[in-house]
Amino acid sequence: MSDKYNLRGVSAGKEEVHQAIAHLDKGLFPKAFCKILPDIAAQDAHYCNIMHADTAGSKPSLAYVYWKETGDSSVWKNIVQDALIMNIDDLICVGATDNIVVSSTIGRNKNLITGDVIAHLIQGTNEYINELNKLGVGITLAGGETADVGDIVRTLDVGFTAFVRMKKTDVIDNARIEAGDVVVGLSSFGQATYEKEYNAGMGSNGLTSARHDVFSKYVAQKYPQSYDAQLPQEVVYTGSLKPTDKILIEHTGVNGIHIKQEIDAAKLVLSPTRTYAPVVKKVLSELKKEIHGMVHCSGGAQSKVLHYVENVHIIKDNLFATPPLFKLIQEQSKTDWQEMYKVFNMGHRLEFYVPQQVANRIIAIAHSFNIEAQIIGRVESSAKKQVTVVTDKGTFMYY
Amino acid sequence: MSDKYNLRGVSAGKEEVHQAIAHLDKGLFPKAFCKILPDIAAQDAHYCNIMHADTAGSKPSLAYVYWKETGDSSVWKNIVQDALIMNIDDLICVGATDNIVVSSTIGRNKNLITGDVIAHLIQGTNEYINELNKLGVGITLAGGETADVGDIVRTLDVGFTAFVRMKKTDVIDNARIEAGDVVVGLSSFGQATYEKEYNAGMGSNGLTSARHDVFSKYVAQKYPQSYDAQLPQEVVYTGSLKPTDKILIEHTGVNGIHIKQEIDAAKLVLSPTRTYAPVVKKVLSELKKEIHGMVHCSGGAQSKVLHYVENVHIIKDNLFATPPLFKLIQEQSKTDWQEMYKVFNMGHRLEFYVPQQVANRIIAIAHSFNIEAQIIGRVESSAKKQVTVVTDKGTFMYY
Repeated sequence: MSDKYNLRGVSAGKEEVHQAIAHLDKGLFPKAFCKILPDIAAQDAHYCNIMHADTAGSKPSLAYVYWKETGDSSVWKNIVQDALIMNIDDLICVGATDNIVVSSTIGRNKNLITGDVIAHLIQGTNEYINELNKLGVGITLAGGETADVGDIVRTLDVGFTAFVRMKKTDVIDNARIEAGDVVVGLSSFGQATYEKEYNAGMGSNGLTSARHDVFSKYVAQKYPQSYDAQLPQEVVYTGSLKPTDKILIEHTGVNGIHIKQEIDAAKLVLSPTRTYAPVVKKVLSELKKEIHGMVHCSGGAQSKVLHYVENVHIIKDNLFATPPLFKLIQEQSKTDWQEMYKVFNMGHRLEFYVPQQVANRIIAIAHSFNIEAQIIGRVESSAKKQVTVVTDKGTFMYY
Repeated sequence: MSDKYNLRGVSAGKEEVHQAIAHLDKGLFPKAFCKILPDIAAQDAHYCNIMHADTAGSKPSLAYVYWKETGDSSVWKNIVQDALIMNIDDLICVGATDNIVVSSTIGRNKNLITGDVIAHLIQGTNEYINELNKLGVGITLAGGETADVGDIVRTLDVGFTAFVRMKKTDVIDNARIEAGDVVVGLSSFGQATYEKEYNAGMGSNGLTSARHDVFSKYVAQKYPQSYDAQLPQEVVYTGSLKPTDKILIEHTGVNGIHIKQEIDAAKLVLSPTRTYAPVVKKVLSELKKEIHGMVHCSGGAQSKVLHYVENVHIIKDNLFATPPLFKLIQEQSKTDWQEMYKVFNMGHRLEFYVPQQVANRIIAIAHSFNIEAQIIGRVESSAKKQVTVVTDKGTFMYY
């Protein structure tokens, strides 16, 4: 498995990057989900600053393929959502849900990505930020850079950087995660009240695997710019599906009605990264002091929390049933389940670490947004940090 | 010429991008060099915020080629400087030289760009920011994102985003540029007191042209990942040089001694984007109220100022003699001189728009950093905005 990763030029754990930054300053709260800086902006000892960058990863490559196959331009606004929420949902994990300033960085191959697409991306950014503002998440768009760099970017690269200043006393610091806490997981799939359609649960991590594992050589042949032609053919688009092959999905809509619908396979993988910001805003308004920690299960997925804890064993033994998309990815790829839980969120992308008595209130708030939530695990004391994921596919340990 | 640009998938003027953002809010000072936001960070009516993004463009592609040819790892710190200074030297044009927070976004093809390179980039970022801090330019590195996205990025993409909060009364607003001002240009080439070697004057604009116009098919054949293989062959590496072909350069070193040296052609093109921040910091400390405007001649080069003015005619009739690198690019490419002045800075990358009586003091300050400076032009009133560049190659007009 790790060979397949290496051959594809990705790593779930980013070992080389972590090694390169190991000696850098960890900020004011070294265990917080984002690096917390002193208040450089306004020099007030009671405040702190956070500046955070992330991108949509390789998701734009599949968006390009699906757009060319179907003409569906809605993929571009979703890519904006992916890149933006990869930042916002990191920030909410330290308690920042307001006064956020963001700026975009777009690199495109102008011969493939037309001016129309740029207009969709820029207009989509405005629209989506307006939607978040209406949901109570205060974000201001500063602007951005759009570069025509076809010799660097095969199709399209979309990233955002976010800046926020907040009170130090408002920072959620994962250093407070402790034995006795329960872990409340918030579902990554279904349809939240603020989502327009079914979300299959994909964030913006694991896309290189998902794209190549699910889709067939048809994509390689028709869209050579969607991948690195120097990859060994045995790891290139090794799945059996075309982007528009239909997958049957059953779910509960926002009105409580059971829905059965066929959705294009690529559209499932392109489900935009769900934001939990409106939910977290509400939770923090009621329970801020009770929240010991929050983890956005991005790179590293169910093992992500290991970056922020010491001397605890986190046992996750009541996860959501594997959502259809992740089942599909595993069927197509035959990936070890141990690996699946480290690469894909597998059903929940946000975790609260809290005393048991507040879990039900968090779950109720999530439900009010039509987001499934449940206690998915617990924290025990331990000589060394560990995550154990107990599932019907087996029990998997991460260190 | 414009055909060659289109075929290569670039545009000096970014018309499509400007069209897509035309309807967006222009900020508090619409003619300032950077967009000025209200003080979202600290909500003080006397302050404003700026958030700014830029990248090294396609310069990393040539850095990759030169690194593979020679093993010279110093290219990576220079690429960091390129990406960072493209931001910093935009910010100084609105008067921001302190309390700047920056974050990087790096995308790499992990199969080509090793962990060593990532370490050079991250360590180079730290080192270079420390150097700027010692020169009085206050920058804090927040962190950054490094993504392994070989299906998106052929080799390497390096960008930075910067945030700064400043007093509104400290903002340099190009709206003050007026008839009667002179234009003081600061040389982009030579060796400043804070530079370790000769700088050929290249910023991070025009790199797609410079790379393909100067270097030969040797590069295409040996380094296919350095360009988009779908470009028509007639615009791919159309020059006659290999990256390590020697170019004779004569210049005056920091100690005043005349230096004659042979430098690799690629190294000239890879000269890191010179920062003018230490000079501007000194100029602002003495003459802030006298500065009507500043322009960083990045995309658009000698015509860049047109974005920030109305009803003036800017006549530039005393430019620096064309530096050797830009002569070389023109000889190799046979590019129209009209186009050369719109794509490449051609000798100065920073302009002050000031009353004549302060010009000599600015020039003296630049000289104290071993940077050539001179009055390169003047501002006249006009019914419509225009730049006229008068050179020994001809007179060129831009609107």
